[in-house]
Amino acid sequence: MRVTVVKIGGNVIDSPAALKRFIADFAALRGPKILVHGGGREATRLAESMGLEVRMVDGRRITDEKMLDVAVMVYAGAINKRIVAGLQAAGCDALGLSGADAGVVRARRRSPEPIDFGFVGDIEAVAAERLGMFLEAGISPVLSAIMHDGGGTLLNCNADSVASAVAVALSQVADTELVYCFEKEGVLRGDGSVIGEITRSLFDVLKSDGTVAGGMIPKIENALQAVAGGVRSVTIKCAAALGDASAGTIIH
Amino acid sequence: MRVTVVKIGGNVIDSPAALKRFIADFAALRGPKILVHGGGREATRLAESMGLEVRMVDGRRITDEKMLDVAVMVYAGAINKRIVAGLQAAGCDALGLSGADAGVVRARRRSPEPIDFGFVGDIEAVAAERLGMFLEAGISPVLSAIMHDGGGTLLNCNADSVASAVAVALSQVADTELVYCFEKEGVLRGDGSVIGEITRSLFDVLKSDGTVAGGMIPKIENALQAVAGGVRSVTIKCAAALGDASAGTIIH
Repeated sequence: MRVTVVKIGGNVIDSPAALKRFIADFAALRGPKILVHGGGREATRLAESMGLEVRMVDGRRITDEKMLDVAVMVYAGAINKRIVAGLQAAGCDALGLSGADAGVVRARRRSPEPIDFGFVGDIEAVAAERLGMFLEAGISPVLSAIMHDGGGTLLNCNADSVASAVAVALSQVADTELVYCFEKEGVLRGDGSVIGEITRSLFDVLKSDGTVAGGMIPKIENALQAVAGGVRSVTIKCAAALGDASAGTIIH
Repeated sequence: MRVTVVKIGGNVIDSPAALKRFIADFAALRGPKILVHGGGREATRLAESMGLEVRMVDGRRITDEKMLDVAVMVYAGAINKRIVAGLQAAGCDALGLSGADAGVVRARRRSPEPIDFGFVGDIEAVAAERLGMFLEAGISPVLSAIMHDGGGTLLNCNADSVASAVAVALSQVADTELVYCFEKEGVLRGDGSVIGEITRSLFDVLKSDGTVAGGMIPKIENALQAVAGGVRSVTIKCAAALGDASAGTIIH
């Protein structure tokens, strides 16, 4: 079995037109596939309309009990079901999942030291055989980043990490590709052109000559780790180019 | 295969202690099982905290687009995932589903004539073989009453009707029992004692002598229709007595 794991971020979810196009493109993608989606600005908007105060430490949001409720409602509820209903209408047999559903992904609450971020977790285990069972039945799992700790507590996780962990776990049982969709066309050179492929050794060169910098460094590190974990390749590309196999930057 | 479909209403969901007890009892129930849950007061509370106006016609709520969002967030998000995470912690391999997920239940938007209730639907089709596949894999589906029309639109449905339609559809492929949990101990006589069993002919007697009246009449009608549709028996009982096979009123 050859599986594609696609991750979309908030920029796609926040734009109804971009989401509509993405849903059609994902539905048209051939073969077994899994979608992992992030959040976008909807959770912040809901929290504001409820009069909740968004608490930040070091630029990161604290997920207290009320903010967890908001995240579960928006990510595992509104966004997940909107995507699933759209995919079903487009002929893709989607199944929305949180990590708790059928026990597909378990997380561990992040240590409260040095900063207590609240109900935030890091991925601990992925039930690859369960996801494989759904894929073999022709079902496309659609994962939000709401996971559980196995003890009854839901945890908000990072969607990039969920996608990576799912792809690495699936690569033990299937030939797995991971596609990160984001707002740019790929990893760009200084002149704006797309770097076609990046290996570990080229990455070291690109880092030292300053071609890749800032937030792109952990993104590529993460992708190289997924490759080291058994994923065949990771592609970083624009969501609008999902159907174009030659688009974006391939990391392998 | 012998399947139990259990429906719980808002009175269980609104009480953390009652829900905790119910989760333990449902997890302990033997054999393949499906849970259908209603809503409770949480959606109204969320709508109020967001400053949304709840519009009623003839004592029934109008589900406009914003109220649908609230229903999806609360029923398919917060409540569904809370129950699923609790069941997983109790050793029950629960899988939360809206009707759109894996296309398990399709609904039709209710006619806007004479009153337009908005995004409210009536059950049209249940994918019994899909639910059967989950049950055979040891998975317990947990259904909210949020369904889809197959065209990308989510619809809020009546949880009693969802439970009944699911049980009738499953009865074509499995020996199926339906249990409605509500706040009383069963169908009661005037002296408060529980009527042990009701058949169609006894129902006619109980109606004519006034023993059953009001809202209990459509509930029993609904149960008798499920039996006519192939469900072996319908039990109306208190949620706290789920594990007690002799409790409540059996309708067959």
